[in-house]
This record gives sequence, C-alpha cells and structure tokens, in this order.
Amino acid sequence: MKLAEIYMQFQSDIQIIEKELEISVQSNNDILQEASMQLLKAGGKRIRPVFVLLAAKFGDYDIESLKHIAVPLELVHMGSLVHDDVIDDAELRRGKKTIQSQWNNQIAMYTGDFIFGKAIETTTYFTNPQIHQILSNAMLEMCLGEIEQIRDQYNWGQNFRIYLRRIKRKTALLIAVSCELGALAANADYKTQRNLYRFGYNVGMSFQITDDVLDFVGTEEQLGKPAGGDLRQGNVTLPALYAMHHDSVIRNKVVDLLATNFPENVDLTDIIQSVKDSGGIEYSLEISDQYLKKAYDALEELPDIEEKTYLREIAAYIGRRKF
Amino acid sequence: MKLAEIYMQFQSDIQIIEKELEISVQSNNDILQEASMQLLKAGGKRIRPVFVLLAAKFGDYDIESLKHIAVPLELVHMGSLVHDDVIDDAELRRGKKTIQSQWNNQIAMYTGDFIFGKAIETTTYFTNPQIHQILSNAMLEMCLGEIEQIRDQYNWGQNFRIYLRRIKRKTALLIAVSCELGALAANADYKTQRNLYRFGYNVGMSFQITDDVLDFVGTEEQLGKPAGGDLRQGNVTLPALYAMHHDSVIRNKVVDLLATNFPENVDLTDIIQSVKDSGGIEYSLEISDQYLKKAYDALEELPDIEEKTYLREIAAYIGRRKF
Repeated sequence: MKLAEIYMQFQSDIQIIEKELEISVQSNNDILQEASMQLLKAGGKRIRPVFVLLAAKFGDYDIESLKHIAVPLELVHMGSLVHDDVIDDAELRRGKKTIQSQWNNQIAMYTGDFIFGKAIETTTYFTNPQIHQILSNAMLEMCLGEIEQIRDQYNWGQNFRIYLRRIKRKTALLIAVSCELGALAANADYKTQRNLYRFGYNVGMSFQITDDVLDFVGTEEQLGKPAGGDLRQGNVTLPALYAMHHDSVIRNKVVDLLATNFPENVDLTDIIQSVKDSGGIEYSLEISDQYLKKAYDALEELPDIEEKTYLREIAAYIGRRKF
Repeated sequence: MKLAEIYMQFQSDIQIIEKELEISVQSNNDILQEASMQLLKAGGKRIRPVFVLLAAKFGDYDIESLKHIAVPLELVHMGSLVHDDVIDDAELRRGKKTIQSQWNNQIAMYTGDFIFGKAIETTTYFTNPQIHQILSNAMLEMCLGEIEQIRDQYNWGQNFRIYLRRIKRKTALLIAVSCELGALAANADYKTQRNLYRFGYNVGMSFQITDDVLDFVGTEEQLGKPAGGDLRQGNVTLPALYAMHHDSVIRNKVVDLLATNFPENVDLTDIIQSVKDSGGIEYSLEISDQYLKKAYDALEELPDIEEKTYLREIAAYIGRRKF
C-alpha cells in the first residue's frame, strides 16, 4: 500500500487531530494565535500523530481518547522547531519565514513555551502517570539534545557516538515515544509497547541520518534552502564526520572553515564536493539502512495485523526518501 | 511570630525541598548542570514551596508527597526567571550575572526548557489529573503574561486593567496555585482550596505592585540594579501609569522618552522624581494594601489552625516589604 493510501485510510481521524491541533493553540492573544496558526498551516507530514494511530491499532483503538496524546506529540515537535529556529537563527523553514524572523527571538521563545504548555495541558486528559512520565522525559531529552548541539557546534573533534546520541535525543526519541504512547494509550500489552518503541527509535535514527545526507546532496529547490546548511551552522553530521575521519585533507579544510566561524556567505561548494567524494554519503546511507532493518526486525515481533504493513511502508518512505 | 521563626519551624522540610531541588536539576550535561545550580544557589525566599507547606497544613500534611509539588512550583518560577532574563536582556539578577549574559540567549532558553521539563517530570508523581491541569494552566497563563509584556512594552497608552491582568499572569497566579496545590495535594476540602487560592492570588498582586513601587523608590544598593529599571526596559507599571493619567506634563515626558526606545544610558532621574511627586507611589501602595486586605479576608474563611497566623505574617511581609 502506498503512503498516500495509508493517509487516506486514516483521513477522518487525521482530520479530527488537525481540528484538535487548531483548537489547542487558540488564544486571545493575537501574536500567539497568529504565530501558532502559521506554524500549523505550514503543514508537515504529521508523522507523529500517524504513528500514534497506527500503534494504537495494536490495542483498543479509540480516536476520542487517542487525540489527547497525538496532539501533544505534534505540539512538542512544533514547539521544538520554534525553539530550534531561535538557536539556528533560521530565516526560512519549509520555504516560509520563521516566527523569529517575522517577529523576534523572544516571541519565538514564548510561542514555543506556549505550545509546550498546551501539549502538557492536553495530556492531562490521561490519568495514567506513565504517559506523563514518558512525555516529560522525552521533552527533557530533546532539551539535552539541543544543548549538546550548541556545545558541539563548530567542534570538528566529536566522534560518531556523540553524533548518534545527539540525533537520538533530537529526533528519534519523539518518534519512538509516539509509537510507544499510541500503544500505551490504547492499553496494548507491555511487549507490544516496547517493540513499537524500538521500531520508532530505529525509524527515527534512519530518518535523521537520511535528513543529514540530504543536506549535502539535495538541491536548493528540494531542501527549501541551500545545501550544506548544517555545516554552515557549524553542525557536523555523519557524512562530514566520515569524510574527516577518512581523509586528512578534508579534515584540514573543515577544521580551517569551522575555525573561521563561517562568514555569512562563505562558498561551501568545494567542501560539499569533498564530502561527496569521500564516500561519506554512501557510508551514511548504509548506517541509515541498518537502522531501518532494525526497525523492520522490531515489526516482526508484533502481532500480524494489517497496520504492520503500513508501519513498514512509512518506515521505508521516511528512511529512504529523496527529499 | 516573625518570618524567620516561621522558616525555622519548617526548616527540616524546607531543607528536604532544597535537597530535592538540587537532585531534580542534576544532569550529565555540564552546561545545564552548572547553569541550573547557579540559579538554585542564587537563592531566593522559596516562597512558593513555603506556601505549599503552609497550605498543606489544612489537610493531611506529608512532606514526602508534598515535595513533589513544592519542587515543581519553585522550578516553574526559576524557569520563568531564566526566560524572562532572555527577554529583558538583563545583565544582573540579585546582583549576580544572569545565565544569558554568562553564556548566551540560546543556552538560557534551553536551561529554562530543561527546568520546565523537570518541573513537569517531578509532578508526574501525582495521579490526580487536577494537579497537572492546574499547573499546566498556570504555566500557560505565565506565558501569556510574558507575551503581553512584550506587546505592551513602550506602550504608554495601556490602562490599569491591562496592567493588573499582566501582573496577575506574571506573578499572582503562580503564588495562588502554590497555595491551592498545597491544599489539593494534602486532600484538603474544595472550599479550603479555593480560599487558599484567593489568599495567594491577592498576596501575589500585592507583592508585585510593591515590587513595581520599589523599582521607583529603592536605592541601587537595595535593588541590586539602578532604580527605574522597569521604565528603562519599556515596562510601564502602576506608579508611572498613575502619574501619566493624572499629569499631562509627565505623560508627555514619558511618551517622548518611550518614543526614543530609551538609549542605553538615558538619565531617568527627572522622570522618576516626577512619578514620585505625582502621588503615584502612594496610590500604588494603597492598591497593594487593598489586595493585602482581601488576602486577610480569605484567611478569615479558613479553619483556625496555627498556620493561619503564619500565612498572615508572610503576607504582611511580602506585601509591605521595603526592599
């Protein structure tokens, strides 16, 4: 089944979540309302809510209950994007102006706080403290990931382990707990929860590594921003780490560049080409595929219901996508 | 009973909370650990935890349970101070360097996010969803207060109602819910919860108005920063609002000044003196006293236990303090 068909299958429930998202960011304050709605309208795949719904199919599926965890997970994702934009000083996201470039960093910060608060408030629907624990722990880990990213910026000496831990915290964990919480909220058994967590974690790792590869190989049109954006912001990702590790000429180039703190319009064409030539792209895609395989392995442990094939389909799509 | 004696009376439980605060901000990340500990060590009166403890005396007092709400309330307060410093571009708080001046705005933002996350995580101890709802609602309202403060900055046309709503959100609400949640966590009855909320709200309003007065009349030594800091940052508070409302000469002076967006080292001596001469200080202190009286009224409705006199003592202290 194709991705679009899976979305079609869940269309009415995704619409319920979309509606709830809009209601949840309602505010009498014009700035917050406008900023939040702009974020919502910017779209996105709503992949976290979709994972909640699919995971819940392994338990007692009830959209009226599930929406109270699908919405918070998307909100936490949105809030982290806003705060991430503050950090990155990003002018554009998905080709649109960011909150912080349209208003300012302070407004962006409080818009994020507001969205996080709404996420927590929505989750209070559930009385099971485990749900709150898992969500708040994920939010904390994401914070750590962001702080580590700041700390490791322009640090060419970091190793692969540090990179992997950072993308776990920044990306994989929220996808993992989306799967886990969908199952938990639907009262699926513990083993199913763990396997879905494991599936989501591996999908998330694969997704982020692919994302980091695309930042090198994507065109400006595909990315909505020039290639090499990560490196330009001092974020050393897997393809560059590999290239530096295997080729001292590239390492010296990158080290020299990082030491300049990247003047605004520095030309990265040469460095990007060097990373491509080093085999860092192929290596990274291989690692991404290894995570994808582990995600499939986790699926094998789950009961054979139709939604298992949907999960596999989505995993394949976001793990191997071309843009 | 004097304030110090009340603190002495609860010393061992306050120490338990202090210890829990330290444990709760533990992190493997050096920056977060150092930044959070610095905030903790900067001290403060821990007035929110103390209100939790006193309020809980109207129910079943158990420190081992109560600490799980006293700690989050102090953390939410701390987190809001960090984010507030980002906004205010504050160099000093309580005479010490702020997180954002020592590191940067991004680190300060994520330190705040981390502290908020820890607050939520600690609260998951409780299964009663009401506790989570009240806390998350307070966090949201504080956010609104901050956004309103940004919106109303340099706006001399705002009225008293807008000012009062802003300080409710920024200050009074968290004190109100500290009292309310202390009672709720100790299973005090609903009427007691409401009266304690009402007490806390009025104490908080009185406290903030006094604070805003002190910003005009305090010495640099008392305040840890030069007088007139609020006005300098474009925050128009009650004494200035009163002065502008009653004296068009002052209004024109303030309007002219606000229109310049306050160059760095502008001399505010003349404006501060004008506000003092206008009667704005006396007026504000009268309003502060009215709130204090309402706080005493709320106390009257509560059962006659010893802690009632403590609450009255603290209210008097923070409502009328001289610095």
